[in-house]
Amino acid sequence: MSTVIADFAVPAEASAGTDSPEARMRAAKEAARETARLTSDRKTAALEAIASALVAASADIIAANARDLSRGAEEGIGDALLDRLRLDEKRVQALAAAVREVASLPDPVGRVVGGHRMPNGVALEQVRVPFGVVGAIYEARPNVTVDIAALALRSGNAAVLRGGSAARESNTVLVQVMRDALASVGITPEAIQTVDDFGRVGATAMMHGRGLIDVLVPRGSAGLIETVVTESTVPVIETGAGVVHIVLDDTAPLDWARDIVVNAKVQRPSVCNAVETVLVLRSAADRLVPAVASALIAQGVTIHGDDDIRRLVPDAVPAGDEDWALEHLSLDLSMRVVDDLDGALAHIRQYSTGHTESIISTDALSIERFLAEVDSAVVMANASTRFTDGGEFGFGAEVGISTQKLHARGPMGLAELTSTKWLARGAGQTRA
Amino acid sequence: MSTVIADFAVPAEASAGTDSPEARMRAAKEAARETARLTSDRKTAALEAIASALVAASADIIAANARDLSRGAEEGIGDALLDRLRLDEKRVQALAAAVREVASLPDPVGRVVGGHRMPNGVALEQVRVPFGVVGAIYEARPNVTVDIAALALRSGNAAVLRGGSAARESNTVLVQVMRDALASVGITPEAIQTVDDFGRVGATAMMHGRGLIDVLVPRGSAGLIETVVTESTVPVIETGAGVVHIVLDDTAPLDWARDIVVNAKVQRPSVCNAVETVLVLRSAADRLVPAVASALIAQGVTIHGDDDIRRLVPDAVPAGDEDWALEHLSLDLSMRVVDDLDGALAHIRQYSTGHTESIISTDALSIERFLAEVDSAVVMANASTRFTDGGEFGFGAEVGISTQKLHARGPMGLAELTSTKWLARGAGQTRA
Repeated sequence: MSTVIADFAVPAEASAGTDSPEARMRAAKEAARETARLTSDRKTAALEAIASALVAASADIIAANARDLSRGAEEGIGDALLDRLRLDEKRVQALAAAVREVASLPDPVGRVVGGHRMPNGVALEQVRVPFGVVGAIYEARPNVTVDIAALALRSGNAAVLRGGSAARESNTVLVQVMRDALASVGITPEAIQTVDDFGRVGATAMMHGRGLIDVLVPRGSAGLIETVVTESTVPVIETGAGVVHIVLDDTAPLDWARDIVVNAKVQRPSVCNAVETVLVLRSAADRLVPAVASALIAQGVTIHGDDDIRRLVPDAVPAGDEDWALEHLSLDLSMRVVDDLDGALAHIRQYSTGHTESIISTDALSIERFLAEVDSAVVMANASTRFTDGGEFGFGAEVGISTQKLHARGPMGLAELTSTKWLARGAGQTRA
Repeated sequence: MSTVIADFAVPAEASAGTDSPEARMRAAKEAARETARLTSDRKTAALEAIASALVAASADIIAANARDLSRGAEEGIGDALLDRLRLDEKRVQALAAAVREVASLPDPVGRVVGGHRMPNGVALEQVRVPFGVVGAIYEARPNVTVDIAALALRSGNAAVLRGGSAARESNTVLVQVMRDALASVGITPEAIQTVDDFGRVGATAMMHGRGLIDVLVPRGSAGLIETVVTESTVPVIETGAGVVHIVLDDTAPLDWARDIVVNAKVQRPSVCNAVETVLVLRSAADRLVPAVASALIAQGVTIHGDDDIRRLVPDAVPAGDEDWALEHLSLDLSMRVVDDLDGALAHIRQYSTGHTESIISTDALSIERFLAEVDSAVVMANASTRFTDGGEFGFGAEVGISTQKLHARGPMGLAELTSTKWLARGAGQTRA
């Protein structure tokens, strides 16, 4: 398991006391006292400075990224990964634009979310406060480095980052540019830290950084997330893995079924809210499966079907039991005929990762039963699973999509990077 | 560390497949599908049935408890523990009354906490849902068995319980009584499980029950909590440990300072919201320390003071560095003179467990700075720290007091035993 994040060598200086992962986490913790008290105006100014600095440093960023790309190409990491890793002029502009968007979001810190006066007169108030230090462990895409730092800062947190080895040179420059930008507006640069240069030791230190990391967000493959969840002793928000289902029942309009399944599979197959398995009620199979399958195949999708599906779709390849648990993240789709809604719900209970499921139906009882009984972060009727997204939900930016039940569930916005505290104002009251 | 919960022998049947901790957690998970969909009326009826059954079974409960007490006495567990363990007619009545109080609380499940219509017309709704299976690992007091089961059930959850070995016979009967009561109103008894009879294996299985335990709440000593937090791979809500501070500044009215410190220390010294350390600003020491100390000493409190305190309080015993980190949970109080508010804040940063701190002051700037900068679940001005309590906060019942920042912070009520899910209702929408 730990090989997932033990992906580059540990430099000798990792054990040095003066510059260690612990020292950087401590510096972040100290900086978090400052960021927690920044006004919204100052945080906006800091984010604007970061956005401008990124654009100004385009050439350096692209040069560092080119070194990552050529090392990646030598190591044969594959075209898809190389593409996710690549930064060009346009993508650096997009990074800066994303930071400006975060700068424009309402500041969650200080929002009063509850309160009342106790019978004895003590005034209670529950207010949003930053977590303190947000940690992130993630993989190839260097834009996560900038996104998480910006979101953390907007919500008054310091950030400790551990990116993938493939993006190491890019991330080093991005972090330096952001730190310099903070310093340029009079905010401590220690609010943004990386432990990339400590390799596995850095990630391990974060996972065990009790008292130094207030919340840790893993973003990446199922293997990375599993490692972080299992190994961490700090609080973790589990994100992402999406074995997403769509159920078609016998009242589903053919055009809704076809358009939603195609959209959910084809529009962006590599992301967690793309559909992976379509379950068709037996009574609807003859009517819906051929048309839905044709539309999918016309878009280049390979259908992995059970025997019932393959009778209706000659081009389908056989699906084995392992397919039901698979997050394809590609133009592959598992399809299965189930006897009835009970069968669909049982399949989802067994194989869903609790991300998003949708039913296509016009029967009110079936829809309400599906919405009530499916235990996932987002449960839909007659809509594409691709809508499970912070931007689509109107949060403006997205930290990730939580698939756990503690603290945050579904798309996480800025508020999910905050905690609360209770303030109590009295005039000498004691407890009777 | 693990000795804390490895406190009785593992019976041979622990490894049997048909009745194992895993099998019981699975049964709870299955039962949680039923409890999640119970109406409030049925949950109320179930809790009323449990309350009545507890009273009806008083004789059996007290007999089992007597066996625990005599074993405890033989093993020399001490009078304080024996008292916490003891159940008599009156305490069983109190258990039942607590269950009836939980039955009367508003049901959090199904409450709509947010929502809006997406620009494309998809209707989004965020609703409260039960976690599923709530686990609790706790120590001597058998009332926790009933409290947690009742709170879990009211919020639509199943419960898996692991009590302390000292209360094992009492807990066995309490769980059986509650299970029978559920069955008597047509609800599956599998919704309340104990793994007490599996000893350490039961606790370990819970801590590693990913997919079976949705949230785990440890209640008890700092050692038990530390073990559960460190070892668990399931989400944990950290509760309780309270190195609680009160700061007295030079504007503090003497009567407020004296009454609040005495109340916070003496009213119930053994609980987490009792004050453990009083910090006095140097400019206020001569005026406040003698009077506050006299009032404390008159109530039987032993003061552990630094040199400055001992100059003013001849009866104080010397405080060492270890005292500042100590949760006395007794009629002992650490007192220290600090140079100024900065010194008080630095001391709190170093030693607080993030539970509750209070400042006694009439200076608006000092109060606001204290409320803003102290990073604890509850930060007070001019009120006793004993008010940090679910009952006092108006939650009606208390799952525990969270000292972490994820999910819940401060006193936890029923809402904190729920998660949310998003429901999306569309009419064929796809993502552009």
